[in-house]
Amino acid sequence: MNVEPQSLEALIGEFASLPGVGQKTARRLAYHILSQSKSDVQRFAENLINASTKVHPCPCCHAFTEDEICNTCRDRSGAKSICVVEKSSDIIPFERSGIYKGLYFVLGGTISPLDGIGPEHLHLPQLVSRIKEEGIEELVLALGSSTEADSTALMIDRLLQGVPVKRTRLARGIPMGSDLEFVDEVTMLRAFEGRVSL
Amino acid sequence: MNVEPQSLEALIGEFASLPGVGQKTARRLAYHILSQSKSDVQRFAENLINASTKVHPCPCCHAFTEDEICNTCRDRSGAKSICVVEKSSDIIPFERSGIYKGLYFVLGGTISPLDGIGPEHLHLPQLVSRIKEEGIEELVLALGSSTEADSTALMIDRLLQGVPVKRTRLARGIPMGSDLEFVDEVTMLRAFEGRVSL
Repeated sequence: MNVEPQSLEALIGEFASLPGVGQKTARRLAYHILSQSKSDVQRFAENLINASTKVHPCPCCHAFTEDEICNTCRDRSGAKSICVVEKSSDIIPFERSGIYKGLYFVLGGTISPLDGIGPEHLHLPQLVSRIKEEGIEELVLALGSSTEADSTALMIDRLLQGVPVKRTRLARGIPMGSDLEFVDEVTMLRAFEGRVSL
Repeated sequence: MNVEPQSLEALIGEFASLPGVGQKTARRLAYHILSQSKSDVQRFAENLINASTKVHPCPCCHAFTEDEICNTCRDRSGAKSICVVEKSSDIIPFERSGIYKGLYFVLGGTISPLDGIGPEHLHLPQLVSRIKEEGIEELVLALGSSTEADSTALMIDRLLQGVPVKRTRLARGIPMGSDLEFVDEVTMLRAFEGRVSL
């Protein structure tokens, strides 16, 4: 016999559709919701809809924003460096570290023929025209370290041939606090290749 | 600079308030929501509110239901056995196994003085009167195997003194598919004590 009410089943289904949430976790979350006050659940539902309707990509850099243009594009207009990331949430660690004070640009993905993502799916023309129009002096590539990221970097490099902009990418090596014993081969290879004088 | 829109932050907060969901997972889920269509998010929000407003405890057994009384209380009225569980979701494995065709009763917790849960917080009087009124012949205790569960079982046993109802509890032992090497001491103790002839 089906002992779960239909609306509870529907809610379990919603949670189970979230990334990394399996059927068991979804059920646990749905039962948790039932233990919450109606006003708390109402607020959760409103926050879902609010985020979904108010947040949109910034027309200049494609980072998520609620405003006409995003905070960084507005407050750092005139900055001469632009940091290219794959997705909006990749901006957070930069701002948390406080090391970077320039502009950002969200590419919307990396070139991945296997997943059907070609250069035409990324905001490449907009990146190039922004670099030219705003006289950007340094482009910092921060695309992670997959083969997809590497081919995307190559494509950007090709598109910018003849444009007087310095191109850099983030250093690759051993992350802070990691135990050398557990460092993977590729990271070790890159850390060794990129070794610097003391 | 805070690069996350306020409504996105609010949504991250909602996800982070769910049990077992940390800040990082909450952020991942919130960004996932932004990638969904507005109609999908609208449906999620509606399912949240639906579950929260429609689902309530069955007045007879305290299992969650959308109807006036729950499916099992309605369809198995007249059954002579009642299975006592701690919370509504504990009913699911019984129904999944199909081994049990009787009634259920959700106690609403187990006696736990440290958490301030005394016998008065559980639906004990209602359980006793239901057993008496409906002429229940067997009470199956399925309260897990903590000390709290044991003292709750003891309390139920005391409350039912003089009532002609057979009292049983689920067998304790080695679960299916488990590697003996990794069985904990208490489970092994109980499995050995409860050994049966071949």
